[in-house]
Amino acid sequence: MRNTLLRLTQPRAITYTQNGSPTDVLRVSTLPSLPAPSPAQIAVKFLLSPYNPADMNVVQGVYPARPQTVDVNGVPHNLGGNEAVAEVVQVGEGVKHLQPSDRVIMGASQLGTWRSSALLNSSDVIKLPPSPAVSTVHAATLAINPPTALRMLSDYVQLRPGDYVIQNGANSAVGTSVIQIAKSMNVHTINLVRERGSSEETEALVQELKNMGATHVLTNEQLINDAKNARRTIKEWTQGKDLKLALNCVGGQETTELVKTLAEGAHLVTYGAMSKKPLSIPPGLHIFKDLKSVGFWMSRWYAQSSQEQRRGIANDIVKLIETGNLREPSHQIVRLGGHDQTDEQATQVLYNALPSSHTGGKKILFDFA
Amino acid sequence: MRNTLLRLTQPRAITYTQNGSPTDVLRVSTLPSLPAPSPAQIAVKFLLSPYNPADMNVVQGVYPARPQTVDVNGVPHNLGGNEAVAEVVQVGEGVKHLQPSDRVIMGASQLGTWRSSALLNSSDVIKLPPSPAVSTVHAATLAINPPTALRMLSDYVQLRPGDYVIQNGANSAVGTSVIQIAKSMNVHTINLVRERGSSEETEALVQELKNMGATHVLTNEQLINDAKNARRTIKEWTQGKDLKLALNCVGGQETTELVKTLAEGAHLVTYGAMSKKPLSIPPGLHIFKDLKSVGFWMSRWYAQSSQEQRRGIANDIVKLIETGNLREPSHQIVRLGGHDQTDEQATQVLYNALPSSHTGGKKILFDFA
Repeated sequence: MRNTLLRLTQPRAITYTQNGSPTDVLRVSTLPSLPAPSPAQIAVKFLLSPYNPADMNVVQGVYPARPQTVDVNGVPHNLGGNEAVAEVVQVGEGVKHLQPSDRVIMGASQLGTWRSSALLNSSDVIKLPPSPAVSTVHAATLAINPPTALRMLSDYVQLRPGDYVIQNGANSAVGTSVIQIAKSMNVHTINLVRERGSSEETEALVQELKNMGATHVLTNEQLINDAKNARRTIKEWTQGKDLKLALNCVGGQETTELVKTLAEGAHLVTYGAMSKKPLSIPPGLHIFKDLKSVGFWMSRWYAQSSQEQRRGIANDIVKLIETGNLREPSHQIVRLGGHDQTDEQATQVLYNALPSSHTGGKKILFDFA
Repeated sequence: MRNTLLRLTQPRAITYTQNGSPTDVLRVSTLPSLPAPSPAQIAVKFLLSPYNPADMNVVQGVYPARPQTVDVNGVPHNLGGNEAVAEVVQVGEGVKHLQPSDRVIMGASQLGTWRSSALLNSSDVIKLPPSPAVSTVHAATLAINPPTALRMLSDYVQLRPGDYVIQNGANSAVGTSVIQIAKSMNVHTINLVRERGSSEETEALVQELKNMGATHVLTNEQLINDAKNARRTIKEWTQGKDLKLALNCVGGQETTELVKTLAEGAHLVTYGAMSKKPLSIPPGLHIFKDLKSVGFWMSRWYAQSSQEQRRGIANDIVKLIETGNLREPSHQIVRLGGHDQTDEQATQVLYNALPSSHTGGKKILFDFA
C-alpha cells in the first residue's frame, strides 16, 4: 500500500510539449500528485503500456486523434499512450462494478497510458475477467490488435470452416492475430510478407508464421514480380474456393495485385498503410467484380460500441487466450519507473529502446512500476 | 402486317466476326429468316437501339460480357447491342403476359439489339406500361442509364430532401439522369465536368446542366489545380451539410480529390472509368473517415433481380418521364433498315455515324425500320 501511494503521489509519464519525432520530443516527466477519485472515477496504476505504431503517429501529429494533456508547472504536457493494462487502486464512491485489484484495459482512445498512475472515468475502462491464463503481457496487448483481427474476420464476410482469407503485413501484430484467430475458426490464411535481407531470413519468417498457424505464405515480391504465377499458385492452394476477404495494411502496387486474387463480391478491408502509398484499384474490379473497399479502425469501433459490446470483445479475446489460440506477442519490456532513475536518465533509457521504424521487430511495453 | 413479315423474313443486324475497333469490324448483314416463336418466346421488331459506350467495349472484346451469336452461311456472327425498345409482333403459345403491339425493353444483358427483329425469351423482356408521354427515344434509353442513376441514388445512402450528392462526368448519360432524378427527390447535386476548348463552351455546358436541374457545377481542372479552394467552395455550397455520396465514372487524380470532399462514412460509387486511370485512394480515408468504395453495374443488378423488381424499376423511370422529371437524352437517329440500301451501303452509313470516342456528344440510336 505504501508503494501504491507513492506511485499516486509522484506519478511518472512519457510526455511531449510539441509534435515531432518521438526521440526528439518525448520526455519522461514527473507529474503532479493525483487527488482522490471523484464519484465516477477510479485511480489506477498502469502495469504495462505498449508502444504501438499509431502512438508514434500521434506524437508526430499526423494521426487523427488528440492526446490527453496534463498541466506541469503551468505548461500543458501531452500524454502519450493509447493501450495498457492497469490495476484498480481506488474507486470513487459511485463506482459499483469495479474494485481495487481488478485488472482493466482501456475502452476509450488516447487516455494517456504511458504513465505510472492516473484517474480515469470508470466508464472508459473494460474490466478483464480474472483469468490466470492471461498474462500481464497478454492483457496489455489485447485491446487493439487481436480485436482488430477478430472484427475484420467477423464483420464483412460470413466465413465458414474451410474458407480462405488473404492478408498482407502478415507478420504485423494484427497480422499474427489474424493467423491465429482464423486458425481457431478453421479458416485458412494466405499470408503476404516482405522478403527479408536473405533467403534464410525469409524462410525463418515463413516458418515462424506457419508455426503460428499460417496456412500459406507468399512474399510481396513474388506477388508483384510474377503476378500471374502467384495467382495460379493461390488458385491451386484454394482449389477453386472463392477468396472473399482480403486484409490490407500495406497499400501500393502490392495491394493492387492482392485485390486481383479476389472473387466477385469480395471485401478489401484496409487497416494500415505501411508502404505509405495510396490504394490503387482498377475500376473494373469495383464495377464488374463488385469489389467493396472499406476501412477498419478499432478506435471507431470502440467509440461506436456499447459498454456491453466492449466487454464482449474483451471476453472473446480472453477466451482465445485461455484456449491456447492466441500467444503473447513477441515483446521487450522497457522499465522506466524506478525511483533510482532521474527523469533525465529514464528519458535516455526510453530513447535507447525506441525503434527507428515500426516495420516488424518486438513490441515495446513500458513498465513504470 | 406485310412489312412486319418482311422484317421477320429478312432481318438486318449489325454483326461482327472478330473483336476490334467498331469501324473496323462491324458490318450490317442480312440474317436468316426467323422461325415462329417457340412456346416461351416472342418475336419482336426493334424500334430504336442505342449505341452505348459499353457496347463499343464489347465489340473491342474488353468488356466482361459476351455477345449473342447467330449463324450466317455457316459462320458464327456476333450480334451487337444491349439496350433497345421493341414492339411485340407475335407471341409463343405459352406467353400470357404479352401480346402483339406491346412495347418492351430488355431485362437481360447482351440480347443483340442492333437488328430489325428477333426471337427473345419472354422472360428476358420488361413490358412497358402504355404511356403516351414515353416517346420511342425515351423507351429506347430507359433500361440502363436512368436506372443506374436511380439505384445509385437509392441503394447506398438514405438521401433526404436538402441533402447533397457529388458526381463527376456530370454531362454523361448517367450523369444527366442523376441531375434530374436527384432534383425530383429535392436532392442537390454538385457536378464535375471537364473544361471544354474555350471558356464560352464550358459556360454553355454549365448552363445546359443547370437548365437540367444541376445545383452547382465545377470543372475537374478547378478541383485538381486548386483543390483547397474547390473544397472551400463546396463547403460554402453545402453550408456544412455532410456529403455522404459520390458517384464516379472518371477515376484518376480527379476522383482522389473528389473523395477528399466527402464526410465520414461516405460511399464512393464507381460505375465508369472514362479517364482509364485506376482509383487512387489515400488509405487514411478508409481507416479514419470510414470511406466505402464500391461499384455499380446495371447488368449485375438485372441479373440479381426478380421479374417483379425489373418491372418495378421500369415503372419508376416511366413515372419520372410522365411527371416531366426526365428528358429525352440528346440524340441522333441513324437509319439502317431501308431495303433500298444494300448491306454494304448501310455499313457505310453506320461508319459515317459512329463517333471516334464516347466522351460526350449525342447518343446514337439505330433504326432498322
